[in-house]
Amino acid sequence: MIQVSVPVAPAGATDAPWRHRHLLDVDSLDRAQATQCLDLATQMRSLRERGDRLNLLSGQIVGLAFAEPSTRTRVSFEIAASSLGADVVELPIQASSVTKGESLTDTIRTLERTGIGTIVMRHPRSGAPYHAARTAGARIVNAGDGTHAHPTQALLDALTLRDALDDLDGMTVAIVGDIGHSRVARSNLHLLTTMGARVRLAGPPAWVNAFRNWANVSVHHRLEDALQGADAVMALRVQLERNAGGGVPTLREYTRSWGLTEERMSLAHPGAPILHPGPTNEGVELTAALAACSRSLIGRQVTNGVAVRMAVLALLAP
Amino acid sequence: MIQVSVPVAPAGATDAPWRHRHLLDVDSLDRAQATQCLDLATQMRSLRERGDRLNLLSGQIVGLAFAEPSTRTRVSFEIAASSLGADVVELPIQASSVTKGESLTDTIRTLERTGIGTIVMRHPRSGAPYHAARTAGARIVNAGDGTHAHPTQALLDALTLRDALDDLDGMTVAIVGDIGHSRVARSNLHLLTTMGARVRLAGPPAWVNAFRNWANVSVHHRLEDALQGADAVMALRVQLERNAGGGVPTLREYTRSWGLTEERMSLAHPGAPILHPGPTNEGVELTAALAACSRSLIGRQVTNGVAVRMAVLALLAP
Amino acid sequence: MIQVSVPVAPAGATDAPWRHRHLLDVDSLDRAQATQCLDLATQMRSLRERGDRLNLLSGQIVGLAFAEPSTRTRVSFEIAASSLGADVVELPIQASSVTKGESLTDTIRTLERTGIGTIVMRHPRSGAPYHAARTAGARIVNAGDGTHAHPTQALLDALTLRDALDDLDGMTVAIVGDIGHSRVARSNLHLLTTMGARVRLAGPPAWVNAFRNWANVSVHHRLEDALQGADAVMALRVQLERNAGGGVPTLREYTRSWGLTEERMSLAHPGAPILHPGPTNEGVELTAALAACSRSLIGRQVTNGVAVRMAVLALLAP
Repeated sequence: MIQVSVPVAPAGATDAPWRHRHLLDVDSLDRAQATQCLDLATQMRSLRERGDRLNLLSGQIVGLAFAEPSTRTRVSFEIAASSLGADVVELPIQASSVTKGESLTDTIRTLERTGIGTIVMRHPRSGAPYHAARTAGARIVNAGDGTHAHPTQALLDALTLRDALDDLDGMTVAIVGDIGHSRVARSNLHLLTTMGARVRLAGPPAWVNAFRNWANVSVHHRLEDALQGADAVMALRVQLERNAGGGVPTLREYTRSWGLTEERMSLAHPGAPILHPGPTNEGVELTAALAACSRSLIGRQVTNGVAVRMAVLALLAP
Repeated sequence: MIQVSVPVAPAGATDAPWRHRHLLDVDSLDRAQATQCLDLATQMRSLRERGDRLNLLSGQIVGLAFAEPSTRTRVSFEIAASSLGADVVELPIQASSVTKGESLTDTIRTLERTGIGTIVMRHPRSGAPYHAARTAGARIVNAGDGTHAHPTQALLDALTLRDALDDLDGMTVAIVGDIGHSRVARSNLHLLTTMGARVRLAGPPAWVNAFRNWANVSVHHRLEDALQGADAVMALRVQLERNAGGGVPTLREYTRSWGLTEERMSLAHPGAPILHPGPTNEGVELTAALAACSRSLIGRQVTNGVAVRMAVLALLAP
Repeated sequence: MIQVSVPVAPAGATDAPWRHRHLLDVDSLDRAQATQCLDLATQMRSLRERGDRLNLLSGQIVGLAFAEPSTRTRVSFEIAASSLGADVVELPIQASSVTKGESLTDTIRTLERTGIGTIVMRHPRSGAPYHAARTAGARIVNAGDGTHAHPTQALLDALTLRDALDDLDGMTVAIVGDIGHSRVARSNLHLLTTMGARVRLAGPPAWVNAFRNWANVSVHHRLEDALQGADAVMALRVQLERNAGGGVPTLREYTRSWGLTEERMSLAHPGAPILHPGPTNEGVELTAALAACSRSLIGRQVTNGVAVRMAVLALLAP
């Protein structure tokens, strides 16, 4: 059995013990709490790399309630919970049941009576995990709700960036794509600025202008302006199924104006890392060469996803 | 490792060791055996509440063969088996395969050769688990077959009622709804009368008359007659998809004549508990206020479901 | 904790330590390596029968990527991996995604970054696991690819035959059916001849003639010629959904010419065992009486499937 001395804020941080019952978004975390979570994730990652097994959640049950298809996030949470010794149960909640009044709540309330202490929830409707948290006794971890929030993605991105840049404080991170519809981008905005970074958003006006007045956030309608001197660049996934029009580019226009290439990346800080939440559309958001090059941290993001989710589950545990 | 001194009949009961290889229905249990199962479930519940972990089924494999959709029963069995240290495997049996002659049997016989010792089976066809038990080597637990039987539901209901009423002997339990098509009601009829309770059935003639001649069972065509002085009341789920007609009420008629309200419940014994196998149609079988009030044991039923299923799996284990 | 002294070639065999990173087919195994795997499977089977639990893969993650429906193979691998203490994760890969260029590879490459060390893959496209092995870091176990290979089926068949015949060297095994479209038959051809057996293939010319020139393989267009004096007989599953025509028999013709009956089996060596990869179409490939008689090893094949898969996973483990 490994000893993990964790829920302690790092030296120098304000003393902010982790008091959250749920993880609904990162906007409720202050810098000390986010740092605590990333530090714990780093410890978790080392333990896993050494093949050590933790049993922090032994005897506890984690329910996976994915009302929207997911591969990497679901697998990542499942591995994280299993690695901590929890029993993992698939919960068959359906997106449609929300429309029938209270039945999502009813299902959650019923299922938690079986002893499920933590429910990891993905839902196509923004706010669904908040609704569950208000009415349920179980701890709720938001694994992505509509276009609203994806807190563990933001935490894994922050961990990946912190590893690469040593510190996020004072760094400039460019995020490229459809910010307005991206729960990944919204949660990143919150967490990166909380950690002291400045964020540049790049995309057509319809996708970025809503964020014009955020503190430490700037909005750019030319990719080059956003990349110039950036310390890191994050490309978002283009939702191929959305239609162009109304100021929204076609796929071809997108790639021409917003696709990352080696030439464009030369505007950024030398060696600036590239992130992408995946799955990538290679040749659209970035070239295949960039995705495979040494500055691409896409693989590290996936690895860090398990570590961050282990940390979150451990911090929420009773 | 916790020691559970279990398969011993309680003091005062006739000495009836648990000899059953399968749990197909509760009609094969005498009062001592049912009591033994409920006592063990009570122990299991305490152990879980203390966070203790049992490994009674360590190294054993429990297969879940659900040929009909199920949320709470499937999750409940999965948690019960995992909590006892078993490996749980999902078995993809299909309801339709029964129509092709022997293939359900063939599938079960094949799968048990992988070392699966216990198969938990839900099937839309009444009698399917009996067929499996006759032809298979594995222990079969019926998790609900057609309109026939649902033995673990009856056991969890009996445990919930015993907790609330101290003893089932001599108590009067009213069951309201479509008794004729309800596997929950049929198994409850058997077990409650075995435990010494009297059962009142309330519903339109087409739903209840078949049970007129059962010992210790009375049939009522007015809800008020069934509720008068009852020690406990169980509402069944209305199958919304069934059509009215032929003596069967519409939903509106059902609620008007058979829906539980606070006013109607005032006819029952003061504080008489309310049970429902779930999921409830609030405003139909009972008001939302009743479902949420302190006499509603719906949440306890779910919690007890895991404990009862742990007890059943432990009693059947080799 | 049990000690298993395994990855050592048996006495008398050439010293061939297991060096394979993947198990894509059996054609890469020499006789010593195959023997080593079968010997280990025999040990694994004994341990399981005694109820001993192994934790050789504790802390490791095995992903099941089945892009084609499967009951017994998937369950068998899941039980094998769990029995060795691994965490098992279902990976939702889809057959169709292969057609979109690199996305199967991308999915595998992503998922392995979560720490999944071994991926068990079934795919309708021949060669898909080879493609994954070339591009992924995880160990790949082929659980059946198109009409190409099914190495663990061949290993379990070899183990079953070796148990029944003491030694495969010098034995004659008849395989009956659509050899050309059968990944089971192709892998059996390789492994049985590697183990020193002679193989007779029986079927209409369109199904067997492609194998005319294989060493130690003979092709027969009359069932009786193939059965005469055979030491063991393996029937393949008829794919009922394939259409007859072009030299391919109808189902009725198939049964008349190629179905195994007691009379026809009397041509084989007395007591010659019968194998079938399952699920059987009783009355088509063989009579129900033969499937149930003592020389039928169909149940043993399923049991041995788990043991062989445990051995394979243990041999591939880092």
